[in-house]
Amino acid sequence: MMGHNLRLDALERSGIRRFTALASTVPDCIKLTLGEPDLDTPAPIRQAAVRAMEAGQTHYAPNQGLSALRQAIADYETGRGMACKPEQVLITQGATGALFTALLGVLNPGDEVVIPVPAFPLYESIAKVAGAIPVLLNTQTDGYQLTPQALASVITQKTRAIVLNSPNNPTGSVFGCDSLAAVAAAVKDKPIWVICDNVYDRLIYGPCPDLSLAGTGQVLLCQSFSKPYAMTGWRLGYLVAPEALMERLLLLHAAQVAAVPTFVQAAGITALEQSVEPMRRIYAQRRDYVLNRLSQMGLSYPEPGGAFYVFADIRPFGLDDEMFCTRMIQQAHLAAVPGSCFHGPGHIRLSYCCAMEDLRRGMDRLEGFLETFRR
Amino acid sequence: MMGHNLRLDALERSGIRRFTALASTVPDCIKLTLGEPDLDTPAPIRQAAVRAMEAGQTHYAPNQGLSALRQAIADYETGRGMACKPEQVLITQGATGALFTALLGVLNPGDEVVIPVPAFPLYESIAKVAGAIPVLLNTQTDGYQLTPQALASVITQKTRAIVLNSPNNPTGSVFGCDSLAAVAAAVKDKPIWVICDNVYDRLIYGPCPDLSLAGTGQVLLCQSFSKPYAMTGWRLGYLVAPEALMERLLLLHAAQVAAVPTFVQAAGITALEQSVEPMRRIYAQRRDYVLNRLSQMGLSYPEPGGAFYVFADIRPFGLDDEMFCTRMIQQAHLAAVPGSCFHGPGHIRLSYCCAMEDLRRGMDRLEGFLETFRR
Repeated sequence: MMGHNLRLDALERSGIRRFTALASTVPDCIKLTLGEPDLDTPAPIRQAAVRAMEAGQTHYAPNQGLSALRQAIADYETGRGMACKPEQVLITQGATGALFTALLGVLNPGDEVVIPVPAFPLYESIAKVAGAIPVLLNTQTDGYQLTPQALASVITQKTRAIVLNSPNNPTGSVFGCDSLAAVAAAVKDKPIWVICDNVYDRLIYGPCPDLSLAGTGQVLLCQSFSKPYAMTGWRLGYLVAPEALMERLLLLHAAQVAAVPTFVQAAGITALEQSVEPMRRIYAQRRDYVLNRLSQMGLSYPEPGGAFYVFADIRPFGLDDEMFCTRMIQQAHLAAVPGSCFHGPGHIRLSYCCAMEDLRRGMDRLEGFLETFRR
Repeated sequence: MMGHNLRLDALERSGIRRFTALASTVPDCIKLTLGEPDLDTPAPIRQAAVRAMEAGQTHYAPNQGLSALRQAIADYETGRGMACKPEQVLITQGATGALFTALLGVLNPGDEVVIPVPAFPLYESIAKVAGAIPVLLNTQTDGYQLTPQALASVITQKTRAIVLNSPNNPTGSVFGCDSLAAVAAAVKDKPIWVICDNVYDRLIYGPCPDLSLAGTGQVLLCQSFSKPYAMTGWRLGYLVAPEALMERLLLLHAAQVAAVPTFVQAAGITALEQSVEPMRRIYAQRRDYVLNRLSQMGLSYPEPGGAFYVFADIRPFGLDDEMFCTRMIQQAHLAAVPGSCFHGPGHIRLSYCCAMEDLRRGMDRLEGFLETFRR
């Protein structure tokens, strides 16, 4: 019998992709499943890639990334409060690549990783590839925030990392100052990396506290161009890490991808010069519309302070969330992702990164579907 | 103390990049160090990427890759003798991504991987990331071929993979039918994957036996668009694997990169339609020129049947290869890579994927440098 890496047996197919695939089997199904902007990449960014290609930037980039892009990122992050040098920046294949390199780069087999849930399933998958043990911390009873008590209940001698995702996928929740202070206190003087997946932090609809942990030297920042610049298909992101660790992460990155496409990186420089305000405003309108409709239907949800998701509570309807979503696809031709795909059962994740007209029709269908429970 | 994955301690910075960096500190140094075509990507391929971008292919691709590209690859590989279906094809971030996914996907900690050397150092690096044990098989005394005896001396109960690279980097050697038959016999009825890194197999200057192992169901084929289409900076490659294994490899790939850039994949479809013959002819001319000059200088080397490297024997000069290359950069302003970077000490790797004028000047400088030993 031919073998394989047994750690892969613990990986599961993404529930997001699974329910999107199910929706695709139903004609005219509206898919509020994907975390992908419906907008195309803005023209200036596309043109920058074309110019780079025509200028011969079709050869290998340095393993760590183009120095001009790393400099632009260092300036940008320093301006936002996370002081860093270009030497600390690694250009990655999206935030996925940043998270893979960060987690595989710091974890040894048997190490524990604290993952507040509900959460995007990627963190758990990568931890398993590293042979580490994901330790899930349910934040629901604490209003999707972190408390000293909750952190103390999961941090052990074996804890080597905690993954923070704010704004959060799937809830849209933003960690407040108290949550961040609790994390800072919990990891102080301990060998625990704070891995920050901040890919939604430019899509914020209210106050968002500074990442006050940045000064600790324990933060690994994972970022992406995907969401703010509608560049999901470009696979461009970055990782910021202390220099001593970066030397090792760079070797891992080189063995994984060699480098990120050169002209894609050139386009990233232009992207950083764009304002995300127009895009943020579009999402803010959609968000307001969806929240209003959901409230009218009597659904409750944690207040989504960022990203483009609402995590609606469907427990009053007496169906488990997988069954709820399956039936909603079949009966109402509307697709959402069950909360249990994120370790948040009893909820469904609705994405509002789609055209307003689809959102209107989607909300109408949801309303009709909910009425079938009241008959 | 903040920790890291201890397996990374075994990784080393690529000698290729190290000596290229050293050469960059010397003005007017001719670099015959990189395995990167000097030619830019052909216009039809660049235009295909631009068209895809303008047509909105800036959104996520499927994890496994665009089905049109996977179909084109399956047709192409089937036509070349490795019958396969699109379901068996995974689009990767270059051959590096294919090798990383293949090796990490099949190896468990403690497994042994046979690596015939001299070899590109990537295989050993990835094996170490997987926690596996690289077992080096020196092919030099067998004329850079594989024999049943040599294979028997390294294959054990713990062997789970063997990595074949033909044409070989750094020697340019092509495995003959006898070598391939020896591998087929050695792995028959054993749980050993044959991982074929065939990235140079379109740049062949003489007969190249079919990969007669393809029928065994034990082959994982790693391929790249980089070398035949001058697309190094695009990071586009693929992995062909049996379907049952592919399901698992796909989950690993999704956790690593999500997918390869969408418009880059679209360009790959166009690339496959291009003839590589003009490029092959250019390299063949350069090869003939370099071999002729080296022979005139009295240097010996294994006959390079493919790729764009010559592995010249510098043992007669009485300097170890690292010292030889360092002095050649400093004194003759000519850079090559020491053979010991590939576990092939006593040799230097000269790349001939650069402009003819640089090759001429480079060979003149080499000739002058060698004369300093004769004074």
